[in-house]
Amino acid sequence: MTSAETYYPNEPTTPKVVTAAIPGPESERQIKELGTVFDSRCAYFVADYDKSTGNYIVDVDNNVYLDLYAQIASIALGYNNPKLIDLLSTNEMKNALVNRPASGNFPAKELAPTLEQVLKVAPKGQTHVWSGLSGSDANELAIKAAFMYYAQKKRGGETVPFTTEEMESVMDNQGPGAPSFAVLSFKKAFHGRLFASGSCTCSKPIHKLDLPAFDWPHAEYPAYKYPLDTAENAQLNKIEDDRCLAIVEDLIKTWKNPIAAVLIEPIQSEGGDNHASAYFLQGLRDITLKHDVVYIIDEVQTGLGATGSLWCHEYANIQPPVDLVTFSKKCQSAGYWFHDPLMVPNKPYRQFNTWCGDTARMLIFGTIGEEILNNGLVDQTARVGNYMFEKLLVLQEKYPELFANLRGQNRGTFIAWDLPSNELREKLLKTLKLNGCNVGGCAEKSVRLRPSLTFDEKHVDIFIAALTKSVTQI
Amino acid sequence: MTSAETYYPNEPTTPKVVTAAIPGPESERQIKELGTVFDSRCAYFVADYDKSTGNYIVDVDNNVYLDLYAQIASIALGYNNPKLIDLLSTNEMKNALVNRPASGNFPAKELAPTLEQVLKVAPKGQTHVWSGLSGSDANELAIKAAFMYYAQKKRGGETVPFTTEEMESVMDNQGPGAPSFAVLSFKKAFHGRLFASGSCTCSKPIHKLDLPAFDWPHAEYPAYKYPLDTAENAQLNKIEDDRCLAIVEDLIKTWKNPIAAVLIEPIQSEGGDNHASAYFLQGLRDITLKHDVVYIIDEVQTGLGATGSLWCHEYANIQPPVDLVTFSKKCQSAGYWFHDPLMVPNKPYRQFNTWCGDTARMLIFGTIGEEILNNGLVDQTARVGNYMFEKLLVLQEKYPELFANLRGQNRGTFIAWDLPSNELREKLLKTLKLNGCNVGGCAEKSVRLRPSLTFDEKHVDIFIAALTKSVTQI
Repeated sequence: MTSAETYYPNEPTTPKVVTAAIPGPESERQIKELGTVFDSRCAYFVADYDKSTGNYIVDVDNNVYLDLYAQIASIALGYNNPKLIDLLSTNEMKNALVNRPASGNFPAKELAPTLEQVLKVAPKGQTHVWSGLSGSDANELAIKAAFMYYAQKKRGGETVPFTTEEMESVMDNQGPGAPSFAVLSFKKAFHGRLFASGSCTCSKPIHKLDLPAFDWPHAEYPAYKYPLDTAENAQLNKIEDDRCLAIVEDLIKTWKNPIAAVLIEPIQSEGGDNHASAYFLQGLRDITLKHDVVYIIDEVQTGLGATGSLWCHEYANIQPPVDLVTFSKKCQSAGYWFHDPLMVPNKPYRQFNTWCGDTARMLIFGTIGEEILNNGLVDQTARVGNYMFEKLLVLQEKYPELFANLRGQNRGTFIAWDLPSNELREKLLKTLKLNGCNVGGCAEKSVRLRPSLTFDEKHVDIFIAALTKSVTQI
Repeated sequence: MTSAETYYPNEPTTPKVVTAAIPGPESERQIKELGTVFDSRCAYFVADYDKSTGNYIVDVDNNVYLDLYAQIASIALGYNNPKLIDLLSTNEMKNALVNRPASGNFPAKELAPTLEQVLKVAPKGQTHVWSGLSGSDANELAIKAAFMYYAQKKRGGETVPFTTEEMESVMDNQGPGAPSFAVLSFKKAFHGRLFASGSCTCSKPIHKLDLPAFDWPHAEYPAYKYPLDTAENAQLNKIEDDRCLAIVEDLIKTWKNPIAAVLIEPIQSEGGDNHASAYFLQGLRDITLKHDVVYIIDEVQTGLGATGSLWCHEYANIQPPVDLVTFSKKCQSAGYWFHDPLMVPNKPYRQFNTWCGDTARMLIFGTIGEEILNNGLVDQTARVGNYMFEKLLVLQEKYPELFANLRGQNRGTFIAWDLPSNELREKLLKTLKLNGCNVGGCAEKSVRLRPSLTFDEKHVDIFIAALTKSVTQI
């Protein structure tokens, strides 16, 4: 039995769209109502989660869609997963919701076991966790950890006290207490929308306009020729990797302020599903070690199985392991993994806040992780992804201009391709919805597939049929 | 019947400390275990929330404390509140937890009713809400809204398009797309620990050291003479208000970069329970209107009833209402209130993220708000606070040096006072725990009281007895 059959014996067997347009009339009405108190301009439709099951999402007009977007890549086990529903009636969950602890000061007796549970799905080489609340928050907290670690090292170790000058200047937001350290990220990156994470983000102006930013640099992320496996492309892509690595090292050496950390997504998701090679990710490890810079991998969107390994960057087998790995989305929780005990700041209350995360969401993460391990969902996703990629190669052969730069081979269901224009991409996504498939885009003209880990071969067949139909309609 | 009797018929009648030291041996062991995966250095004890009830928190050594700290001021209705427990078994809660929506793109049919419910406890004059995840996040989101609003106004209105120069420069983190706008906050302020909120925070160096900050100014928060109601002090305090208002206006006029927003707590909580007068808060409204600056009130710690009004700043009856009010903590959720439709950015996806808040936590907020209204808990807190303040005045008379600057009269249970030194304050808090009362400090030498809204007269009597005993022991 596949995981979908195990979990969802009553999952629909096929999508069903009953309204002439999407959003349908009832969604339209509710979006308008919601708009009186909330910003509802981005709503595609209003969902009825009571009726949604497994890989199918149902809207308030009773349209039933096969969901390959899964709440912007954040549903790991499908809708109404029975194991997650069971979790809700536990005492642990009741305590985390009704008696939400300030986990730094008054941790619950359940906290250590909960964290030990989530650590079972930590990336290889990572042994500790610090918890936050969202992807942006995870990246901001990791950036804080990186700055404190970097400053401590520069100061001469964790026992060297702060100077009076540092203690005084920081209260005026000035150096040396508030140093002009920088984080190096990449063009087309997306790391969140707060002020440090936002300064690292570089995918679209609309995410950043009118917001003050730190004066931090964006290096170039390698842009590969596809398919990756022809000899000619392999050679060109190696040259591209070396070019981009040289830019990173040059920025570290020459940037106006010290670069404390390098922050990178192993696949730039929001920015267009741009992949980085194992060679490139290892090259960054070598450069960051050489220059004593903290290496942070952002696995907010790529993490927890969708790429066919538990954590995307594991395919690169980076040695020694990176310093910090951030997570959120499919984990339904957020935070960062680390392994060096010195990454914990030298004094208490430096990395701290009222709740220090959300134990309720960590409990959910723990159960998701357990289900992934118990049901072999990473292997399943690798297998289903390969099956889907083969079918997409056939479509690419037939419609090369509508399936350009097909990418994500051997990366599970984390697959994307380009349309000729933004207009055509939007048209394809709209047509796919009308044909019963909820699919997302990224960057200007890419389609990204982000189903849950319970997506299996029969869902692929349904999707490929809808996609084949849709491309003839646009 | 008081709310504690209604909710908690089986609440303990008295605290009970059974270990010679706190943390007790079992807490010690668990804190050490937790420390292998988490930063547990700030833990006072490990709590057993299954055994905690109403106003009493129980630790894993079976010590029973009357809780006047309530998870750093974040528990509104006591532990194991039956109405919140009932909420857990609803379909709405199941959907919000198991099928966590990306509420911007695929809002649940439950979202509009949930927000309409929380809007019933919005501050007077505020009609809309945007949701976040924590106090820091709420302030960062409000600061983003303020910057976008300010820029839009400066640009000439919401229909004026971004320039090519803005669109290009912002991708390099440079102006004019990433403008050098500033937020003015106050010395001793606490607004959170991320990078924009952290630049506004100015209470202790340890919160800020080694982190880059925006070059934003901190004005002076008025420091009053207590008691407030003597003629001499009233006159001196008015002079102090005028002095501080003049500094704010001067900074707005002369700061090196445009000040887009003023951010203030009506009572600086972390910074020492420093109160601002109605005159001062209205004065800021006048100045911000005059100079076209956004006025943001941070009610993360002061909000939702503890000060004897639903929102602390309402006592000042600021006219016209402030532009943004942030909330978190007792709301068990987070976000900001606003009323000007132009505070919604002119384009979608400018104020956006994957989850756009957490509907599960908003449902809890809605129920908390409903219970507060249905049970008259704001009035109760005002009454109980007055009762407690009277008792503290008696203690102050007897031990003037141990109860200096007693403050919070007519501010519900939001009461604080100063000890002569940090050392004595720490000793008092420790002794209070050994005498069965869990109480928090703020700033260097203040004690702050932050019980839940279900705290009533009988709890006051128990606390005052323990406090009286403790002051003779330190």
